[in-house]
Amino acid sequence: MQNKHVAIFGAGLVGSLLSMYLIRRGYRVDVYERRPDFRKNAAAGGRSINLAISDRGWKALHEVGIEEAIRKLAIPMPGRMIHAVDGALQFQAYGKEGQYINSVSRGDLNIAMVDAAEKAGAVFHFDQRILEMDPECNTAYMEDAVTGKKYTLTPDLLIGADGAFSMLRLTMMKTDGFNYAQQYEEHSYKELHIPPAADGSHRIEKNALHIWPRKSFMLIALPNLDGSFTVTLFHFTKGENSFAQITDTEKLDAFFAEYFPDVVPHLPNLHADFFGNPTGSLMTVKCFPWSKGNAFLIGDAAHAIIPFYGQGMNCGFEDCSVLNALLDAHADDWEQVIPVYERTRKPNSDAIADLAKLNFVEMRDLVADPDFQFKRKMAAKVAEKFPDQFIPVYSMVSFSHLPYADALKEYKRQDEVLSTFLQKPDIRSEWETKYFEEIANALCNL
Amino acid sequence: MQNKHVAIFGAGLVGSLLSMYLIRRGYRVDVYERRPDFRKNAAAGGRSINLAISDRGWKALHEVGIEEAIRKLAIPMPGRMIHAVDGALQFQAYGKEGQYINSVSRGDLNIAMVDAAEKAGAVFHFDQRILEMDPECNTAYMEDAVTGKKYTLTPDLLIGADGAFSMLRLTMMKTDGFNYAQQYEEHSYKELHIPPAADGSHRIEKNALHIWPRKSFMLIALPNLDGSFTVTLFHFTKGENSFAQITDTEKLDAFFAEYFPDVVPHLPNLHADFFGNPTGSLMTVKCFPWSKGNAFLIGDAAHAIIPFYGQGMNCGFEDCSVLNALLDAHADDWEQVIPVYERTRKPNSDAIADLAKLNFVEMRDLVADPDFQFKRKMAAKVAEKFPDQFIPVYSMVSFSHLPYADALKEYKRQDEVLSTFLQKPDIRSEWETKYFEEIANALCNL
Repeated sequence: MQNKHVAIFGAGLVGSLLSMYLIRRGYRVDVYERRPDFRKNAAAGGRSINLAISDRGWKALHEVGIEEAIRKLAIPMPGRMIHAVDGALQFQAYGKEGQYINSVSRGDLNIAMVDAAEKAGAVFHFDQRILEMDPECNTAYMEDAVTGKKYTLTPDLLIGADGAFSMLRLTMMKTDGFNYAQQYEEHSYKELHIPPAADGSHRIEKNALHIWPRKSFMLIALPNLDGSFTVTLFHFTKGENSFAQITDTEKLDAFFAEYFPDVVPHLPNLHADFFGNPTGSLMTVKCFPWSKGNAFLIGDAAHAIIPFYGQGMNCGFEDCSVLNALLDAHADDWEQVIPVYERTRKPNSDAIADLAKLNFVEMRDLVADPDFQFKRKMAAKVAEKFPDQFIPVYSMVSFSHLPYADALKEYKRQDEVLSTFLQKPDIRSEWETKYFEEIANALCNL
Repeated sequence: MQNKHVAIFGAGLVGSLLSMYLIRRGYRVDVYERRPDFRKNAAAGGRSINLAISDRGWKALHEVGIEEAIRKLAIPMPGRMIHAVDGALQFQAYGKEGQYINSVSRGDLNIAMVDAAEKAGAVFHFDQRILEMDPECNTAYMEDAVTGKKYTLTPDLLIGADGAFSMLRLTMMKTDGFNYAQQYEEHSYKELHIPPAADGSHRIEKNALHIWPRKSFMLIALPNLDGSFTVTLFHFTKGENSFAQITDTEKLDAFFAEYFPDVVPHLPNLHADFFGNPTGSLMTVKCFPWSKGNAFLIGDAAHAIIPFYGQGMNCGFEDCSVLNALLDAHADDWEQVIPVYERTRKPNSDAIADLAKLNFVEMRDLVADPDFQFKRKMAAKVAEKFPDQFIPVYSMVSFSHLPYADALKEYKRQDEVLSTFLQKPDIRSEWETKYFEEIANALCNL
């Protein structure tokens, strides 16, 4: 199995990571990317949300030996900073002291990873489009976007790491027995930008993920190394209060003045950003199987999710780590590995898709809800006192390597338990005295 | 709006029916079909299940003036004939005296409908493939399958009546905001054939839909005019007891001898049919919206369902009838009609998809279940006594024009009501005496 020739489609985050794993295993790896080399050209940009690397992502980066290099690109965010309409701030820690997620620009991360993969020995081919696979999914029909030349590829393995709109998946979709679903949210998003202060510092708290929760919509901001923030507005695509209604600068200013007054002074390019940047869609993709013939899907190509748990990339990175461990366990016998991989991984990718949807509601609505905050306070205290017996769901997802499917089950169980205690009339005054042991017992499921 | 030019893709049952409606409204209609003219060539066949026309289908056929012609092709089936493993027969009426569904061969029906549509003025173009639409869904890129010549079409309306694997839908699927799901059953199917008896008569009861229910799988047979039956085996695709295990004539014979002994003498070509005919898949497609630009999906292209309620064609025909009524109501203003059509029709196509899945369980398993049979007996009696206050679900679907979504709600409600009565220990002996009024009141929701 050594020196097997693998073609990876997509030089994004998962494609470049996987190429490093496979190079380390002794494979010959070619990576084909539809876009031009984004290291040479200024990124088109205007439609990316900053990423939040958490523990699953770090594990994979560590396994291919680039964790330390990537840490230099990332800004720790130990919690959420909630902005009320009146400008009041409230900080909510994500986990325990010393636990944090990490803001990183997608573009910077991708460039660093392609550089590292290339250095490791992967060969990158930019401007190369896959047009289709043959029906057996063994041959890729390609086109050079610059010369227009068409050619075919018949490697030992064709791996689709080509994202939410995967061309490999589109070919598989036409084959018998391929289950597939794509579902759009009613919300879409727009990238905005807070530039650095005059002295190069961050205009608002650097070490936090900022949220302006407004029930059915929200604004978020994640810090960048240069003192700026990448800001994202999530809003209904159409309808009464929606992107479709914000048709001129007057309406835009009124909208921001009403809902986000404290951030307005920090958005000097609001008009240009809002009307110049494209509006992005939010889509969830579920499909199965993830393989056919010699072709195999990984990352967003197999399971695109919405960005509200900050887990899309982390899940894709964990895909690679899990696959690598199975290749270890089965001596690189892909015919054994792939069925096990897809059967065991699928419930987890389904679970994080569902958790991301739940977290969207949490971010835009519940974080500003007193009941929700109180439930989190009770859970945090139990986690602090019984760190080995109880892990809050957010920590399971972001600061552990426990299966996403278990986190989803815990989400439901923990919320039920905490909601029961909320019914007690004296809970708010007595939770630490009268009820704590009972709460702890219930949450720890002892 | 008169003399609008419409291109319909697909000369199947829905495409040819819709062409007749639109011709009657004064449109110019061209129908493009990928296959060769099936009136000239023997049908490839070997993978079709007989159709069962019921009231929704007849209504549409009546509206375009071909009901009487089609009635001549159909054989009434007033009920199911259940075949036990020991050969015992049990007849279960579908509805009241004089109510029946109608067996018709897909091929014969399609030929009759294309002939009628052509006579009415629709122009059919066979061997014409649609390759793709432009991203705005206003232009169709076509290819003549015989000459290889490529050309474009820019009619006022492009209507996709091109079935479960619709090419129009595939193009729409790549556009922003298009929700889509395709889901395969674990079962697939195989067409078999009972030839006529030597004297040309039917070898088993002509006026019935025959079912050999075997819990997880089943055999069905529908009568043809020539004395034959089209037989279909539905079975797991793979696994322990499945198509995949029936690898030679010995295993095939053993399978039929064990589960379907009474039909074996009537299947002289079992070996050739089973190993010669392809195995068909069973897929459900849901998507939304059904329109984009000037393109619009109808019938299976918008909502393919599995065949177990015999409603795929009936639903597609009702699509055309509903659309036609809306064109009447809105003076052929398609920009008004399509949003109303898709919004009001979608819950009904979703409901019949769900009912078809429920009916698969009913056909292969429940029809042989004493509890199920007893529930049906109670419901039938109530329907007989209170025909205006209570309609059993099967009758709502097959013998009424009530919305499918209402039938699905009734399915759940009626089953709950009847299951409650089943709990009473003396129900079987006392249902007509002690309980009937109570049952009737509950079912009629009085």
